[in-house]
Amino acid sequence: MRDAFVVGTGMIRFGRYPDLLLEDFAADVAREALEDSTADPRGLGIAVFGHSGGGRVAGQRVLRELSLTGMSILNVENACAGGGTALHVGWMAVASGLHDVALVVGMEKMQKGLIPSNPGEYEAALGKTLPAKYALRARKHMDEYGLTPEQLAMVSVKNHRAGALNELAHYQEEVSLEAVLASRMIAEPLTLLQCCPTTDGAAAVVIAGGNAVRRLSQQPVRIAASVITSGRYTNPAKGQLASDDDLATRAGQAAYEMASLGPSEIDVAEVHDAFTIGEILACESLGFCARGDGGRIAEEGVTALGGRLPVNPSGGRLSLGHPLGATGVAQVVELTRQLQGRSGARQVDGARIALAHVQGGSTPGIGTGASTVHILTA
Amino acid sequence: MRDAFVVGTGMIRFGRYPDLLLEDFAADVAREALEDSTADPRGLGIAVFGHSGGGRVAGQRVLRELSLTGMSILNVENACAGGGTALHVGWMAVASGLHDVALVVGMEKMQKGLIPSNPGEYEAALGKTLPAKYALRARKHMDEYGLTPEQLAMVSVKNHRAGALNELAHYQEEVSLEAVLASRMIAEPLTLLQCCPTTDGAAAVVIAGGNAVRRLSQQPVRIAASVITSGRYTNPAKGQLASDDDLATRAGQAAYEMASLGPSEIDVAEVHDAFTIGEILACESLGFCARGDGGRIAEEGVTALGGRLPVNPSGGRLSLGHPLGATGVAQVVELTRQLQGRSGARQVDGARIALAHVQGGSTPGIGTGASTVHILTA
Repeated sequence: MRDAFVVGTGMIRFGRYPDLLLEDFAADVAREALEDSTADPRGLGIAVFGHSGGGRVAGQRVLRELSLTGMSILNVENACAGGGTALHVGWMAVASGLHDVALVVGMEKMQKGLIPSNPGEYEAALGKTLPAKYALRARKHMDEYGLTPEQLAMVSVKNHRAGALNELAHYQEEVSLEAVLASRMIAEPLTLLQCCPTTDGAAAVVIAGGNAVRRLSQQPVRIAASVITSGRYTNPAKGQLASDDDLATRAGQAAYEMASLGPSEIDVAEVHDAFTIGEILACESLGFCARGDGGRIAEEGVTALGGRLPVNPSGGRLSLGHPLGATGVAQVVELTRQLQGRSGARQVDGARIALAHVQGGSTPGIGTGASTVHILTA
Repeated sequence: MRDAFVVGTGMIRFGRYPDLLLEDFAADVAREALEDSTADPRGLGIAVFGHSGGGRVAGQRVLRELSLTGMSILNVENACAGGGTALHVGWMAVASGLHDVALVVGMEKMQKGLIPSNPGEYEAALGKTLPAKYALRARKHMDEYGLTPEQLAMVSVKNHRAGALNELAHYQEEVSLEAVLASRMIAEPLTLLQCCPTTDGAAAVVIAGGNAVRRLSQQPVRIAASVITSGRYTNPAKGQLASDDDLATRAGQAAYEMASLGPSEIDVAEVHDAFTIGEILACESLGFCARGDGGRIAEEGVTALGGRLPVNPSGGRLSLGHPLGATGVAQVVELTRQLQGRSGARQVDGARIALAHVQGGSTPGIGTGASTVHILTA
């Protein structure tokens, strides 16, 4: 496999677009990423679209808006990890040498507030929906490691503070610790402001390899690792407790190995904070702190903008928003721009190495899903 | 890219399974393919699932039925070409060297008789549904090349004859030319028996590379070409007529180039006969005959079992059935077994080289979609 690089990015402001078709705003981000890379759209070898609810051949319908056709086009679904999965396929197509230039688009127009359950998901039918699942893990983390409600809420405060600086975020307002704790209880201990909003959005990157890289970008960002895995959420056989996240742990370890570096070298990260507890578990599983310390580092500002390792400088899912298939790509757009020094008030000074993590798609019992980790280097 | 091989196949009888979940019958074909290959399921690097209507993380839900987790799992959507697209991703994962063993599953539980149109598909809303689109092309072919209603109907007669010999086909009964022509008119000139039925089904293959190949199969079948492309259905700039199929033509040409062989070397083929006219256009576009001769070769028996180049020995979409995402994989299951000499009454004697073609996912105006071609060699 050869090196592959992000050479262009595009993203719209996340929010609600009831009057637009998915095709409309997804075409906008594809166009922006292609223009950012100066790639001739007709030189595209492959275009990969990540989404869950776009319907049949949604990617083809998006490219049609740009009068683009002729390349390989495929649509990828992996729930909350759909964008990360699309990136992985685009990376594979370039790193394998099969194509020199790939367009990857993550996009979603959310239909309903609650993600409907699939037939056969008997646990969801009984009430074990996503907020409930995350809430159970938060409760367990409190039991097992002493996580406090205030630490949990601080994740939301921190991410809304970053989102307030991001002109692409769905919510661009700071929230106080008191407001987070006092907001409506959704699934104890998770209050409304600890759950991601219902958000439409799209983001795109152009990935290139070989001679195309320097031709398409003055500031290519290398994809040092691209990993997707599935697995149990926790693995007692490894001595893990019930609130530990084995899936993210394994994805992170595989990515660090592929990139030949470790968690202490990460300068900035985007992780899956669909619920506040998600960021805490991800920070622990990805080795940003010891197991059980995820709440503490949020409380102490380690993961805030200006801290030692800023996490979710975009505002994260809680403030940027979480349009399922768009999220993984939006994370890499944010981090690419951070490594290129283009992030304005949210810029992490001197950032050279970044990590993106997205996770989702639980199934009953076994907890199989998808977790993707990408490591980017300037 | 290194060589990749089909080392295991699995498939259920296609039909209607109103009382089963998709997970149930898709798990059956995955298990069968893994057993056929003698692959240790825990050694799987990646599993790719092609489907249009399985809902979120359907592949993960299928593997859960087999208690399988830990590998990369992804879901791919490309309408009628979803199975071929999943194969392409699985092939890429192995041919790139990223993984040694890939499981590819195509599966579909059809919800309704008519495929619902996507928002934004204004042509479909006006009545230009799939049967209408194919009917228009059939009418144009009659104008442009003199295709007769009898030639068109012969494709259905031929494929039902093959399907009658296939214990996995949805319909296992021969139909007469008279019965095809006299069946209910759906979209002139296409009668009911010239349109594929509404069918549930699933099929799976195991793909391997490197040292894993000989370990997993006594009769590995090489994937000599794997191509996916999109494009206009016809290209007047190339001097093509309105009924010509530029998309299949380009996919075929790219596949022949990748495999370093030509259409005259193909011994047996599965092509996209969702409607009778589809097979005729595919035969012409893939170079099995001159442009305009697709109806004639069906009428003369060239493409029948026992003919010079049997096309759709499985019974094709018309008799085997066409569960969208399952079709591309089912074609490769049929052809792999043909090349392994395991096809019983339908065996094409001495078959060494086979081609699979599937196509779909039209969009308004530009006609962008997906066409995949795989070439297999014994």
